This record gives sequence, structure tokens and C-alpha cells, in this order.
Amino acid sequence: MKKIYGIGIGPGDKELITLKAYRLIKECDYIFVPMSKGKSLAKTIVSEYTEGKDVIEIEFPMGEKNAIRYRNAAEKMDHMMKDGQTAVFLTLGDAMVYSTYIYLMLELQKLDFQVETVPGITSFNAAASCLNMPLTMKDERFCLCDRFVDEEILKRVDSIAVLKVNTNKEDILNKLEKHRFHYVYIKRCMLPEQKTLYDRHAILADDDYMSLIIARKVGVRSGE
Amino acid sequence: MKKIYGIGIGPGDKELITLKAYRLIKECDYIFVPMSKGKSLAKTIVSEYTEGKDVIEIEFPMGEKNAIRYRNAAEKMDHMMKDGQTAVFLTLGDAMVYSTYIYLMLELQKLDFQVETVPGITSFNAAASCLNMPLTMKDERFCLCDRFVDEEILKRVDSIAVLKVNTNKEDILNKLEKHRFHYVYIKRCMLPEQKTLYDRHAILADDDYMSLIIARKVGVRSGE
Repeated sequence: MKKIYGIGIGPGDKELITLKAYRLIKECDYIFVPMSKGKSLAKTIVSEYTEGKDVIEIEFPMGEKNAIRYRNAAEKMDHMMKDGQTAVFLTLGDAMVYSTYIYLMLELQKLDFQVETVPGITSFNAAASCLNMPLTMKDERFCLCDRFVDEEILKRVDSIAVLKVNTNKEDILNKLEKHRFHYVYIKRCMLPEQKTLYDRHAILADDDYMSLIIARKVGVRSGE
Repeated sequence: MKKIYGIGIGPGDKELITLKAYRLIKECDYIFVPMSKGKSLAKTIVSEYTEGKDVIEIEFPMGEKNAIRYRNAAEKMDHMMKDGQTAVFLTLGDAMVYSTYIYLMLELQKLDFQVETVPGITSFNAAASCLNMPLTMKDERFCLCDRFVDEEILKRVDSIAVLKVNTNKEDILNKLEKHRFHYVYIKRCMLPEQKTLYDRHAILADDDYMSLIIARKVGVRSGE
């Protein structure tokens, strides 16, 4: 049997990976990383820990249908590995939160790989810590979503994180203001280029794929 | 100035702390851990990393008013430390998610401590990885809450984690079933005593403070 560890390597700070991730990267036979548009941020983040080892970039070509691209990637990994070998597949943030790995995992399971998922620090947990902003205090509720916010949910939660906000920021900010949320926009959280914006106009003017909005209802106790 | 690092040490597996947490524990002048009923799980989890160092247990007595217990703890830490020294305060899971540390941080900030929060792996991220169960796939929404679930939210999210379920399990399970969620009950996630229950009667019969329910809507794509 072949074993894959799907590992969340956290938001981008090379120190925010777990001891388990570090050990598995050192011990495994193969290191796979996702590549997008010729780049692999995951590969850059762990580069200090992979010295002397081959890092194999796995592409998920945008033009292909989902079912095919993940199937092809899983088959490529299958062909490279021998029975009894282990590999890690590294993914940003947490492995079970909006990750390419989830789709890959489903294909790997069909090919009879043994799969173990190792959790990582999410971008929204990192953002909350970075701002000393509580995500949830006793009896509070938190919602995680991507791109769109739902007004009925806004009425019923105390804090929210919206990932991948670059396509729809104005609508998101309008709804957050209507429902009296304090919001913060963070791009490239925990990377050297990290930037934190509070001003509506500055947020609307920015355009970065790796950005998120984290918000907390006004009147709710705050750490800031 | 005195500096406190509030550090999330993850769900209980000593390998699921970050490299940053590990380094700060080794480098700091003082290690503070929360103690409850004479025990400190945080102290046990990191015991291998604190050898040769004093670990100072901080109690938050239940009888006292919140404002007073956190104020007293912050003052105790203030009295022990000298200017220019650093300390870590270790908390289970992530530091900004339902933690005692949040309340302590607010008091430390009033006493002019420099505070830096270091994120950790949450119990619900760990549970999702452990089950290979996606928390969120593209365009999905996730809700985090403690003790109670809100039916309007259940209609509008794809997955949910409910922490501290021991007081109110039957109501939670009824609502999850009504809104067609597949649920899993995990206690002591990532600790040696970890147990995973799927059966309604077994879940209702169990009684453990460190338990959570993680659930995903039926019909939503699943990793299981």
C-alpha cells in the first residue's frame, strides 16, 4: 500500500507549521506540492525543510474539468510511488478548509491509497491572532464563508471570516456595515508582504487573491 | 516592558504544536499554564518541551467574578516578571477560539504588557482532518458555535462544529437530524483516549467535557 499524508502547512509563516508536518516532510519518500501558474507558494514556505530532497510540483490545469484534473494528479502520484512508500502533499492553511487537497484526496482514496490528513493553521485563525481579535468568546458564533456573505447569517453570528474576497468586496462591505460589523481586510497574512487595511476605500482599491476579511459585531466585547 | 506570547498549543497531540510555539517555549523566561480543578492539560501536553524549566500554574477560581479572576491572574504574572522579560501563556486549541486566554489578554493589555498571540490548531480542524471530512469546499459555509445550534443557521450552512456539547446533546442532535446533517461526536480529539461515536444513543450516553460534534449536510460532497 502507498500512504499519502495531506498536510496543512499554515498561512505562510514557515514557523507556523506543526512539529508533525516538519517530521513528516523530513521522513517521507516524496514531497508533492500544488503548482499554480508556474508557481508553488507551498514549496517556497517549506524550502528550508526540504533541502536535499526532490519536491515534485503537481499541476491542476485550469482548463480541465475538475474530475479529470484531480484524477490525473492522483494517477501521476500513483505511478511515481512504490508499495510501502510514503509521500506528503502540502497545502496552504488547513487541509480540510477550501483546499485543492480535498478533491485530490477523494481521487487518492479511489485508487486505494492510505490517506492521513494532518491539520494546519488556517488563514482566519492566523488573522485573528495577528489582530488580537477574538474569533469566538463564550456563547458566541462564528461563520466562515468564501466570496459571498448571507445576511440572515450575519444577523445570527458574532464574527465572520470571508475568504477569497477579491471579486465581490463592495457587496460584502455593504452587508457588513448594514449589520454593524467592524471589519478588517488582511492580505498575504503571515507572509512578508502582509498588509492590514481598515478603511473602506483602501479595501475597495486593493486587489489581491490572497486576501480575507475578518469582522466582529459592534458592541460585542473585543480584544482590540 | 514585559512581553507575553499567548500561544495556542493545539488539540492535545504534542506534535500538533507549531515550530513557533516550540521555539518560544524554549526561549522564554516564564511558562504560564492555566490550571482547572488542580489539573493542567496544557502542562501535560508540552511536558517534553519544558524540561528543566519552571512551569507556573495559573488558577482562575470558579467562584470569583470574571473581571476579578482575570485581573488577579494578570497581576500575579505582572508581579513575577521583570521589565524586558518574556513569558508564554499556553492555551489549548487556538488562542482566539473560546479560550480563557482571551479574557486574560484583555487584562494584560490594561497592565501595559506587550501581547503577541500565536495561533494554534483548533479542535474542530483537528477533528475534520482526523475524519478526512471536508470542513468547507468551494462556495460552502461553515459555522462554529458552543452548546446551542441555531436552526436558521443550519438551513444556511453546509457544515458545523459544536463545541462543549455535554449539557445539551439531545437538542443538538434533534436539530441536526431535522436539517439533514450527518454528525460525528468526537471526544478527547487527538489525545490518547480519543473516541469517535456515530450512533445517536451512544452519543447521548456519553458525558465528557472535552467533546465536540462535527456535522455535514447530507447530499453535500463528502470525503468520507
